[in-house]
Amino acid sequence: MKAGALELGQASIGSAPRRGVNKGVSILDFILRLVALIGTLGSAIAMGTTDETLPFFTQFIRFKAQYDDLPTFTFFVIANAIVSAYLVLSLPLSIFHIVRSGARNSRMILIFFDTAMLALLTAGASAASAIVYLAHKGNARANWLAICQQFNSFCERISGSLIGSFGGIVVFILLILLSALAISRR
Amino acid sequence: MKAGALELGQASIGSAPRRGVNKGVSILDFILRLVALIGTLGSAIAMGTTDETLPFFTQFIRFKAQYDDLPTFTFFVIANAIVSAYLVLSLPLSIFHIVRSGARNSRMILIFFDTAMLALLTAGASAASAIVYLAHKGNARANWLAICQQFNSFCERISGSLIGSFGGIVVFILLILLSALAISRR
Repeated sequence: MKAGALELGQASIGSAPRRGVNKGVSILDFILRLVALIGTLGSAIAMGTTDETLPFFTQFIRFKAQYDDLPTFTFFVIANAIVSAYLVLSLPLSIFHIVRSGARNSRMILIFFDTAMLALLTAGASAASAIVYLAHKGNARANWLAICQQFNSFCERISGSLIGSFGGIVVFILLILLSALAISRR
Repeated sequence: MKAGALELGQASIGSAPRRGVNKGVSILDFILRLVALIGTLGSAIAMGTTDETLPFFTQFIRFKAQYDDLPTFTFFVIANAIVSAYLVLSLPLSIFHIVRSGARNSRMILIFFDTAMLALLTAGASAASAIVYLAHKGNARANWLAICQQFNSFCERISGSLIGSFGGIVVFILLILLSALAISRR
């Protein structure tokens, strides 16, 4: 609370229009966090509930595909879940920034964690994309066959669940920029 | 130049110790960029020169593995090359920041591009990691066999070339933090 009071004191030195801009930036920050949360949570749920059982089976084998057959997709779900949890936890701080638009130290903390989460989300999304690409196209040189010919709806689902993550990456880049802008305008 | 003069004018309002800290931050920024450059350039070269021809061959087939047999590795090389080129181009700006440690707008530009390059580098490195993992372990459910049993030195090379990229990711996170710190201390 002491730090908050100090920050408020510093902010009052700045001119009124600047504080208005910072308030606008903080509100945009809050909205973007909600958008990113919808994207990453949607991705985690869409991928995490993916499984397909083929309508034909032999005496011994039942053809079934689940997201956790491929460890990369498990990582994708975990990464998206962690980023979603972080976004929920960062919302109160974002509201705090709307109220005290001159805050500096808490914005630095947000920049650090936003950057780390951007890296985590990008890692999960692009690793999953590499495997989805392989599932669609296969690779003749390595003798890996495309599995999408058999598991059609499974492939559509895993491809679609990437969208939310990539949307989240774009939003995180914007969030880092906005925080830097707010700090520089203080 | 006008903006530079303006920034210098603003900086002179700040106290001397603060400017000293910012100079230190700028020098550290320059050194970290060199470290990241070595990492990403090394990764691009190590991956881009990877090929292995097995010592045995039949009448029709010669067993050969090259990095561009897998499109993901081509992306990895391109991503690392782009990031290396960006790092070289950002060095003059980094030197400018050592001289004029109060600069603000140019630091904002650096934060934006650093964040974009962090995302690009992470995407390349983690997509390549997903494929390297598959090459080592294979996947029984998708019937993808591990190719590392045949192409041993190929696999060692592609695994090793990831290291520089992941080092670069860590350095980029530090660079973004340092720039934010320099802006907030202005």
